[in-house]
Amino acid sequence: MNQKTNLEGFVILDDTRGLLMKAAERLHRHFKDQLNLETIEKYVFESYELLDAKSEVKIYLPSLTERFAKDRLSALLKSDNLQVSDTLDVLFVCVHNSGRSQMAAGFMSQLGGDRVVVRSAGSAPRESISHEVIEAMAEVGIDIRQEFPKPLTDEVVRGSDAVITMGCGDACPIYPGKRYEDWVLEDPADQSIEAVRVIRDEIKKRVETLLSELLPA
Amino acid sequence: MNQKTNLEGFVILDDTRGLLMKAAERLHRHFKDQLNLETIEKYVFESYELLDAKSEVKIYLPSLTERFAKDRLSALLKSDNLQVSDTLDVLFVCVHNSGRSQMAAGFMSQLGGDRVVVRSAGSAPRESISHEVIEAMAEVGIDIRQEFPKPLTDEVVRGSDAVITMGCGDACPIYPGKRYEDWVLEDPADQSIEAVRVIRDEIKKRVETLLSELLPA
Repeated sequence: MNQKTNLEGFVILDDTRGLLMKAAERLHRHFKDQLNLETIEKYVFESYELLDAKSEVKIYLPSLTERFAKDRLSALLKSDNLQVSDTLDVLFVCVHNSGRSQMAAGFMSQLGGDRVVVRSAGSAPRESISHEVIEAMAEVGIDIRQEFPKPLTDEVVRGSDAVITMGCGDACPIYPGKRYEDWVLEDPADQSIEAVRVIRDEIKKRVETLLSELLPA
Repeated sequence: MNQKTNLEGFVILDDTRGLLMKAAERLHRHFKDQLNLETIEKYVFESYELLDAKSEVKIYLPSLTERFAKDRLSALLKSDNLQVSDTLDVLFVCVHNSGRSQMAAGFMSQLGGDRVVVRSAGSAPRESISHEVIEAMAEVGIDIRQEFPKPLTDEVVRGSDAVITMGCGDACPIYPGKRYEDWVLEDPADQSIEAVRVIRDEIKKRVETLLSELLPA
């Protein structure tokens, strides 16, 4: 395996481009004839650049890029009405996408199950989810270790049926005809596990209420 | 949150039972009318005990239990011919489920995409996937950080269309009518990253060949 080290000391693989092209081919198969390969490649490479500007751990970038691009492309299909969807697409946005929006997404995924498609993003994403947030969610049986902070992109807003913001202010774009809510919640960043638990429990209550309104039994 | 610490110093949550009951309810909704709640609860609690006997990190057990039980229940449905399936179910088994079978499962998932359901297990599962294995897979764009070693159970063998063993010897049950292969591969446990890369590349070649035979283009 050929490697080179850049000026900052990160290991950069020579074959990153090859990995991203293969990811694009897989996504092309996944989305079948709904999106052409050129569009998918454009999204994959742009997603890589967006994550690369923020991410600490370079080695995982190609696989995180594939997941991020898949999320964005499924939102693109829904926003362009190219795909008939019987699921409810919900987006949670906060500043860092490392605390509040990740907890909300975790509860919504668990409680909503197959009926919802959940995405999250940050207006200024951090490098990683905070350890206390991961631990507090694990305590209630939700494993969010595989999640990662992602920047806010236009198509995930357009492709969502409901958009919940948490303190990201003017950074969140608004589209008419959507359901919007802004939740006022304390930021768990750099707080103790005890403080994070309180925020977590508040988020859980709000997600339960939102879910019961969006998907009446 | 009420917690107590057991003799070994692990944090055990008083509400683990509650978390597992909720997991069973979610799986009941997921599998709709195909399995009754009693069966699902039996599998969830048994899965918890199987993982508990081996796992280091107690705090993530309820969510790992839910994923493990979901895998087992989908295999159960397929093995009992209760569910019409148009996917190919492939099982990789090695001793620890922390190296060879995890790498093979990672390649098969990535290369096979939506056409395959991939499971893996170990005859004597370790506590976690080795760091070198995770890193070697990340280098080729496959993120297996969220995977975890799981014990070998009967229904995942019965529910698989193809079973590939890697050195687990007599511990692997055999059912007539399945496609079986035994791959002779070096064990990456406690080996250097350079040695793991060689094993990884060999596994990739074999998975490509297997996939081309199982799913001709």
